[in-house]
Amino acid sequence: MRHLLSTADLARDEAESILDLAEEMKKVQSRRVKKLPALRGRTIVNLFFEDSTRTRSSFEIAGKWLSADVINVSAKGSSVSKGESLRDTVLTLSAMGIDAMVIRHPASGAPAQAAGWTNACVVNAGDGTHEHPTQALLDAFTLRRHFRAATGDPEADWSGRTVAIVGDVTHSRVARSNVLLLETLGAEVVLVAPPTLMPSGVGTWSCRTSNDLDAVLPEVDAVMMLRVQRERMHGGYFPTPREYTVGYGLTRDRLALLPEHAAILHPGPMNRGLEISADAADAATSRVLDQVAAGVAIRMSVLYHLLGGDEKIDATSLIGTKGQTA
Amino acid sequence: MRHLLSTADLARDEAESILDLAEEMKKVQSRRVKKLPALRGRTIVNLFFEDSTRTRSSFEIAGKWLSADVINVSAKGSSVSKGESLRDTVLTLSAMGIDAMVIRHPASGAPAQAAGWTNACVVNAGDGTHEHPTQALLDAFTLRRHFRAATGDPEADWSGRTVAIVGDVTHSRVARSNVLLLETLGAEVVLVAPPTLMPSGVGTWSCRTSNDLDAVLPEVDAVMMLRVQRERMHGGYFPTPREYTVGYGLTRDRLALLPEHAAILHPGPMNRGLEISADAADAATSRVLDQVAAGVAIRMSVLYHLLGGDEKIDATSLIGTKGQTA
Amino acid sequence: MRHLLSTADLARDEAESILDLAEEMKKVQSRRVKKLPALRGRTIVNLFFEDSTRTRSSFEIAGKWLSADVINVSAKGSSVSKGESLRDTVLTLSAMGIDAMVIRHPASGAPAQAAGWTNACVVNAGDGTHEHPTQALLDAFTLRRHFRAATGDPEADWSGRTVAIVGDVTHSRVARSNVLLLETLGAEVVLVAPPTLMPSGVGTWSCRTSNDLDAVLPEVDAVMMLRVQRERMHGGYFPTPREYTVGYGLTRDRLALLPEHAAILHPGPMNRGLEISADAADAATSRVLDQVAAGVAIRMSVLYHLLGGDEKIDATSLIGTKGQTA
Repeated sequence: MRHLLSTADLARDEAESILDLAEEMKKVQSRRVKKLPALRGRTIVNLFFEDSTRTRSSFEIAGKWLSADVINVSAKGSSVSKGESLRDTVLTLSAMGIDAMVIRHPASGAPAQAAGWTNACVVNAGDGTHEHPTQALLDAFTLRRHFRAATGDPEADWSGRTVAIVGDVTHSRVARSNVLLLETLGAEVVLVAPPTLMPSGVGTWSCRTSNDLDAVLPEVDAVMMLRVQRERMHGGYFPTPREYTVGYGLTRDRLALLPEHAAILHPGPMNRGLEISADAADAATSRVLDQVAAGVAIRMSVLYHLLGGDEKIDATSLIGTKGQTA
Repeated sequence: MRHLLSTADLARDEAESILDLAEEMKKVQSRRVKKLPALRGRTIVNLFFEDSTRTRSSFEIAGKWLSADVINVSAKGSSVSKGESLRDTVLTLSAMGIDAMVIRHPASGAPAQAAGWTNACVVNAGDGTHEHPTQALLDAFTLRRHFRAATGDPEADWSGRTVAIVGDVTHSRVARSNVLLLETLGAEVVLVAPPTLMPSGVGTWSCRTSNDLDAVLPEVDAVMMLRVQRERMHGGYFPTPREYTVGYGLTRDRLALLPEHAAILHPGPMNRGLEISADAADAATSRVLDQVAAGVAIRMSVLYHLLGGDEKIDATSLIGTKGQTA
Repeated sequence: MRHLLSTADLARDEAESILDLAEEMKKVQSRRVKKLPALRGRTIVNLFFEDSTRTRSSFEIAGKWLSADVINVSAKGSSVSKGESLRDTVLTLSAMGIDAMVIRHPASGAPAQAAGWTNACVVNAGDGTHEHPTQALLDAFTLRRHFRAATGDPEADWSGRTVAIVGDVTHSRVARSNVLLLETLGAEVVLVAPPTLMPSGVGTWSCRTSNDLDAVLPEVDAVMMLRVQRERMHGGYFPTPREYTVGYGLTRDRLALLPEHAAILHPGPMNRGLEISADAADAATSRVLDQVAAGVAIRMSVLYHLLGGDEKIDATSLIGTKGQTA
């Protein structure tokens, strides 16, 4: 793996290899000794053209726990405000000798362009309405853990499971990355959205779609509520907040429609009371904080896959031995 | 000690234990080899909802000198601007697996609330007009050192000493934390403020109060000048800057009223010419820069008390041995 | 060397010593193992009163590759916004016990003032229209490498070479630092600028000046294009962007006037299409990205010269031995 730009680029075995190493990283996360020496001497730049505490912090922690040097660059304090092109910014940072660039950008496709200009590994940390692959990976990781815990079967995976992705699908890079990855992994995906927030080209996607959340909920194994991004809604008819909640919010009443074992996911930050009620966010089957925890483990795994060298990844020895001395 | 939220929570022996370890940390600070391995593998988040270079830098240096990983999160670049609640922000950062959260927040009580939501240790780095406990600890540390140097008695402490805290007491978290701590430690505190900047409930505080700075100065062992926070003065009658300086500024003339041995403190940043004259700020008895230096040592001590494990703190061996190899 | 404030302070052998160690650091930069333990335990503060991604990142990477702790302080999040003086800011950071302060400031002379107030080493990272010494060092380093590669002579240096510095000389700290350093190193410098962008006192400078770029280009060994800083142009007659490009831009047509071996430099960020065409920026003889790469090596060398202790610098052993174990 040279870059991580889209979940469409991941074959099933590659995706599962990332998830399996993240399971090992999770052990590190929960131990007192948190550092692995694996990426010592490697330099990672977090290049964020949009604010995002949670994603930036998660990548920063992941890099530091692997002993890499992490440099934060935000568009606000950058040459970008002096009119430098994205290309020159990427070329400049590359020339400094860094090993990886984690890019969040408001324009769809920016990280893929960047990957064409640099020798560093590029990780797409969210580009416009396009993709957010590490979010999809952490969601898949969280779902697998949930399914295994719910069934008691340590081999359980996504096969035969139905996952509903609900809300503002049109503007959601999270939805797009999840559809691609979950289908690769064997799950069935149903997109649920009001007609004006369903992508116009959705007919060409392979997943099912619906405008009726109440009809879908009873049949799912997990429901993923998307953040309402009012800042992206302009130039069209969009539901009011109240209309949205009535039609597509995971309200207390709708919780009762969900199967007892079904997981509730949300990529955060949550608009409590809008797309998700406090009852749902804090329910026993809510996996929202597990998602956050998974984020660090997934990003450790992705960074290790990209930068960890050619040696075969042997997670147990990685942690069992080196972890002791870290 | 599980959190550091208020100096009211510190028994005298706990406070003195923090100050004593800070004395050891001070040795580290003045040595060429500055790092201790004590908190290697621990992750500290500086979560600042208000700007503060000096406090944030001081905690960051303290954490790094103990070999912890330090992540800075400022409200400006955060999910907060997307409307996320403090609770969700705290839950999210906690879920990543961090060990401590250093919180600066404009709302009094925010760090105490956060402490109820997280398994991480919480340090209050200043909340609204409420408290700023590490500032009070570094002030107490600076005073003890000053008293010992001034008297030549290495056992001298705060007993029998009088400390005047002067200025905008109403809006000062520094004043509040200092009154509580200094009284715990045995000092007598006199609050000096114009009537409109004295807290309305001050009658229930155990310390003396005065509106007459000139009458108080001759009897003190130390005077702590508070920063005038004009940004907090609205909806009431407050002195103009000139009235303030005339009545409550530590002017060159007032310096002559101070006993020769008395220390001058200010938490910074100073408004030179307003609450403190350049003569006072730069006087031989000014301890302002000693306070800043003490800040790093105190924060190292606090972080070590919170995160350093259950082993008995043996400062000498901590530094004498491990420091050599750091 | 106690501080690096101006290239005027560097004797030829000092400058060459910095450049020679940077050659060694460059080897580190291109190796997989990037860290040297040389500055472990040292603390460097990047104190930036102006935004600059490239300079701040370059110093941060340089410090981290030498294993120092690096703390970023930007004026926006600083006490400066509460009206603290530069002197108090510098005194405060010094009191924390840091070892070096890298200062970018809009006022010419600010770093030199700071150096008078602190025990820490001060590096001028660009002050107003005054100087930017590490930029000049990295330019000299890039030129020497270019001359050696172009001639095949490993001992080639700046003697007998002519370097044109072109554009907004009046407002350029880069120009000022380069003139001083390049002349110290033996090169001949020609300043080329429109009359209103040539400094009024340039008659006292020792270098040649010209208003005719076309006449100068055929005789140079390198041309350094300056960034047009429109934000600094007010209160006088200045060329419009189009006039500027026609008269002083390195357009495609002007490329043909340059000798084949001549290097093209630009300190970045570039205004493509204004002072430099895309053809020139991306030409085979463009050294723009080499300059960026050199920046990290030069800053490692400067930081090592300032903080590396009294031991004689033996670059080979520094890297050959300690590098292995880093």
